[in-house]
Parts: sequence; C-alpha cells; structure tokens
Amino acid sequence: MAIRLIVDAMGGDHAPGEIVLGAAKALEMIPSLTLLFTGDRESILRILEQCGAPMDRIRIEHTASVVEMEDDPLLLLKSKKDSSMARGFALLRDGEGDAFLSAGSTGAMLIGASSRVYKNRLPGVKRCALGAILPFSNPTLLLDAGANPEVSAEELAQFAQMGNVYMKAVFGIERPRIGLVNNGGEATKGTPVYVEAHQLLREAGDLNFVGNVEGRDLPLGACDVAVCDGFTGNVILKLSEGFGKFLSKSLEKTFRSGPLSGLSYVLIKKDLMKFKADMSYEKYGGAPLLGTIRPVIKAHGSSRAEAIRNAVLYAAKYASSEASRSLYHSFSQQARTENGGESEV
Amino acid sequence: MAIRLIVDAMGGDHAPGEIVLGAAKALEMIPSLTLLFTGDRESILRILEQCGAPMDRIRIEHTASVVEMEDDPLLLLKSKKDSSMARGFALLRDGEGDAFLSAGSTGAMLIGASSRVYKNRLPGVKRCALGAILPFSNPTLLLDAGANPEVSAEELAQFAQMGNVYMKAVFGIERPRIGLVNNGGEATKGTPVYVEAHQLLREAGDLNFVGNVEGRDLPLGACDVAVCDGFTGNVILKLSEGFGKFLSKSLEKTFRSGPLSGLSYVLIKKDLMKFKADMSYEKYGGAPLLGTIRPVIKAHGSSRAEAIRNAVLYAAKYASSEASRSLYHSFSQQARTENGGESEV
Repeated sequence: MAIRLIVDAMGGDHAPGEIVLGAAKALEMIPSLTLLFTGDRESILRILEQCGAPMDRIRIEHTASVVEMEDDPLLLLKSKKDSSMARGFALLRDGEGDAFLSAGSTGAMLIGASSRVYKNRLPGVKRCALGAILPFSNPTLLLDAGANPEVSAEELAQFAQMGNVYMKAVFGIERPRIGLVNNGGEATKGTPVYVEAHQLLREAGDLNFVGNVEGRDLPLGACDVAVCDGFTGNVILKLSEGFGKFLSKSLEKTFRSGPLSGLSYVLIKKDLMKFKADMSYEKYGGAPLLGTIRPVIKAHGSSRAEAIRNAVLYAAKYASSEASRSLYHSFSQQARTENGGESEV
Repeated sequence: MAIRLIVDAMGGDHAPGEIVLGAAKALEMIPSLTLLFTGDRESILRILEQCGAPMDRIRIEHTASVVEMEDDPLLLLKSKKDSSMARGFALLRDGEGDAFLSAGSTGAMLIGASSRVYKNRLPGVKRCALGAILPFSNPTLLLDAGANPEVSAEELAQFAQMGNVYMKAVFGIERPRIGLVNNGGEATKGTPVYVEAHQLLREAGDLNFVGNVEGRDLPLGACDVAVCDGFTGNVILKLSEGFGKFLSKSLEKTFRSGPLSGLSYVLIKKDLMKFKADMSYEKYGGAPLLGTIRPVIKAHGSSRAEAIRNAVLYAAKYASSEASRSLYHSFSQQARTENGGESEV
C-alpha cells in the first residue's frame, strides 16, 4: 500500500536540515513511501541534493513563514496561515497526504488538528489529545500527554475510547486495559472531574476499564492506556524522561566508585547504553495527536535525523494500519447517535 | 534538649507490632527522647515487654478505636474521636508532646492537622500540605505530595512559603530554590490556577523563586522545593517510587543477559543494592504535614520497624530544629497583618 506522508520541513530545533535528512533516510527503508515537504523550497532542495534523495518520490510545497515555538498557537489561524505547518494541515484536509508529521510547536499542532478551519478533527471528538508511548514494562499509551491542561470528565472518557482503538489497531492488543491516572485506587479519589470520569468509564460497556492507576503502578505495566489531563500527562512524560537521565548518571557514579566497580563498569558499559536506549521514549518515534480524520504525528522538538527517520517509519506504519479507519468509524457513529457537541476553536 | 514524641501505635498496615518496635528502637539512639503511645494499652505493653524497652521513658494513653484506611477521614471528628489518631492530635494540641507521628490514613491526618476542633493549624495557614522528600540529585521537598487534590493559587503560594522555611530550618539550605511544577517554562503555562500562582510567587520578594520546573528537570535537581497541587504531587511521588522498582528489575534483566553480563552482574550486585536503597524515598523517614503549630509526621502506611525507627529519628530532629518556631513566626506574623482567612473544616 502506497503511503503519502506530508512533512513539515521547518518545525523543530534542527529544521530544516535534520528533518529533511531524516525523512529522506526513511525513503530507503519503505519503497512504497512518498514525501510531500512543506517549507522553504530552496533550503529543502539543497539538503535533498546533498544526500542524493530519490526526487521522483518527493514533492515540495513552498511556504514563506514558520510557526516558532514561542508563537501564540492561534497565529496558525491568522498571520501564519502560510506557514509550513498550516500548509501541512491544509494539504492533509484536502487529501493530499495520508498522514502529517511535524516537530513544531505542540500547541500550534493542536490548533491545526482541532480547528474547524482545517477540518481535520473527527466528527464527535470534543478535543484532540496527544498520545505518547512510555517504554515501561509494556508500551503504555499516555493520553493526554500534554495538549489539554484542563479537561472535562467527558473528554477524559473520549480519550479512553481513542486510546482503546489506537492500541488495538497499532499495537495489536485485543482488549487494551484502560486505566485512569489518579491519586488513589478508590472510585471516590481525585478531583471532581476525575471522580466523574471514573464513573463514566465504569459505565462504558465497550471498554476494558481496569480502574484508577496510581503513579507507582504505571512503570510496572498496570495498563495499556493511561488516561489523564494534559497537565498531569506532561509531568508524567517529562518526569519519565528526566528519570532516565538521572538514573544513567547515578548508575555511572555508583559503578565507578568502590574497589571492584571500576572493572564492572567497563564490563557493563554496553549494557548500560542499551538500557539507556530502551528507556528513551523517542524509541517509538513520535507521538500521535489522536482525534483527527487522518493521522497527525508530533515529533520531539529536539529531534535529529535519526529520531525523524524513526518518526516517519512510525507514521507510515500508523497510516497503513486500521487505526485511522477504526477511529473514524467509532467516532462518526457516536456523532450520529449523540449529535456530538464540539468545542469551539 | 528533651523531645517528647507522641506516636499513634495503631495506624499503619503493620500496627501495632512494627510501630511500637520501631519507635522503641529509636529510644536506644536518642537518650533525650521520650515516647507517648496512643492505642490499645495491653497490646502495646506486650510488645514493649518483649523487646525490653526502657519503660521509664514511655507513657501510654489507652484508646479504644482505630481510624481505618478506608474510613471517611471526617470520622476523626465524629465517631472516631476516641481513636488512637484523634487522641494523638488532641494531646499534641494540649502540649503533651513536641511532635506527633502516625502511619495511619493521610486523609484523616490532614483533618487532624487542619481542623479547628484540634487547633493544630498555624494561624494564617489556609491548608496544611504533605511534604515528601524525593531522593533526587539533591533532596527535593515535594509539596503538596498528596493531601489536597485541588488548590487555589494562594494556597500554592503558601505551600512555597512553608517549604521555604522548612528546607532552611531542617536541611540548612540558606536560600532554598522554589520551583512551581508546570507543563512548560513560560509564565503563561498551565491551568489558570498555575498561571496565577506563578505571578504570586514572582511577586513574593522574600522567596528565591526559580520559576516553573518541568517534570524532566525535577530529578536533575532544578529546585529544593517543588510546589504543586496534591493530585499532581501524588502522581510524582508514586511514579518516583514505581520507577525505582521498575528500574531495579530492568537493570537486573539487562545485566543478567549477554555473554559478559553474568559476570558483571555478580560484580555490581552490591552496587545495585546500594543504588536501590538510595532511590527509596523512605530513606528520609517520614513526610511532614506542614502548616501545623507543632510537627506532625506521616510515616508510610506499609512501614515496618526500621522505617518507623527512621521516622522517629527524623521526627525528633525536626522537632528540635528551628523549623517549627520559624514557621510559627512566619505565619502568625502574616495572619496579623493580613487578617488571614482560613478554610472551613
């Protein structure tokens, strides 16, 4: 199956160089992949020439501006309508690609995915959410990992449904275990929003809801989908990242001290590197912005070529999976029966 | 300086056996310490006799009931007024001890510390908060670590002040770096409550406010006091705990596999154990419930004798430090100038 991927060449700390390079590398690995870059044509062409990319599988849409990390995300709908990211979302809406990848501002991507202007949001979905795969005992989809700092109980329940479909279709888990992140196991725990969400999830007959999950249960594999608001999710995601770094440092220190440890450090150094790599949440390439008609993938802002290549491979896999279609069917059905209310953006 | 510690003998998963045993062990280490147990007199006496504790430094206040983990915390003010925990708070209020330690329900302890009935809350303090020391690059006081799932901006700002005084007095840090946990570095990040709290902290001239801290910065030692609501704090605390367990497991697996690794595992096993111990947040004994007139310390519900002994040592250190007096002066001054509003409990 041919996959047409739209790539925002200008988003991210190392754009456009590392973005274009990384995406071009992925072309070597997936013969059925074609790329549609948005961004500064000349810069993109220069990089592609340098790396000898197959130009017959690449298109470029020239855009004049870039959404910067510090920009107000709403600029995507105003003065930055001609940015590489905005054009990407417009092309996705118009069916010019099967998925869209950007390493740009999460907030702006959320607008592009959710706004009525770009019509990329699934009918029935109230808010799009950022899903991140945490490399715990089992891959755990954290949802929302940072897009919506404040959410309602209904929105949390929708995140659970989106995560359910996603883990089924992309990770092949038959009945994903859905957990609600909370500060205790009992149904009465948490803020009023979480108490209500627990109730809604318990009543949702089609979900394998395993109840509240506490922070300590997450790394030990308590669930396949961990549902929470974007504030909490961001803290969990970044704390996991920080832990990886902190522990690598601590371990090195521990292993370097003591009489025998110098030797053991030499012996286990390779293992330690492998361990570090396992704990890197970038292993899974990118984070899906769930709730859109076609897949939208957010790559980490600091991504270098290799991370972008992984993100493209992942995007291709996601786009060719059942996930998009399943999500579409699941939510458009709901929208018809519930006359699904939508948030205003 | 003589320290009189009140100990709830009946709170916790392994009460009264491990509680009484652990507290008695601490007596051997601090000659100036005396204990006042609340709980079932006969059970307590039996354990004390078995371990040959010095009875001239121990008093027992008999109580008939126990606050259970699953009890509504408000029972402390109603049908469980005669529980070991309630009596402990009453004795503390009446000046019968210099500090109070319990491994019982956090929710009930919060009521005991905050309620007007027990008069243990400092004048001017709106809500008491649970402080937990995280064993990161530097000991980091997480506040609130789980007592108040929902808080106002003013309450967050008060937590910062309490944490500031505490880290100065107990950890000897001259100008503790105060960080506000958030989902981004910019002042506009987070929920409206966090945006307002950022503003309040920035305007508080007496604090060394280092701005928002993200999850990834926490383990790397970005601040000495990490301020957040109790929902987020609980997730951070328990995720840290879960990580420790998960990583120990992963490391063992990594080191046991591969050709050289069997050997290196044997060599580094001792280091690994030390590392595990370092990452245990129980190393610091107990979690202070800040905002009270005299120190109140929450020990982990699953504490065994050794953890209780550590908690008692910690409680004694805390009670003999400047912290209580400093907090008292800091807040009673505020209460006078601001006519400090208090929350209703």
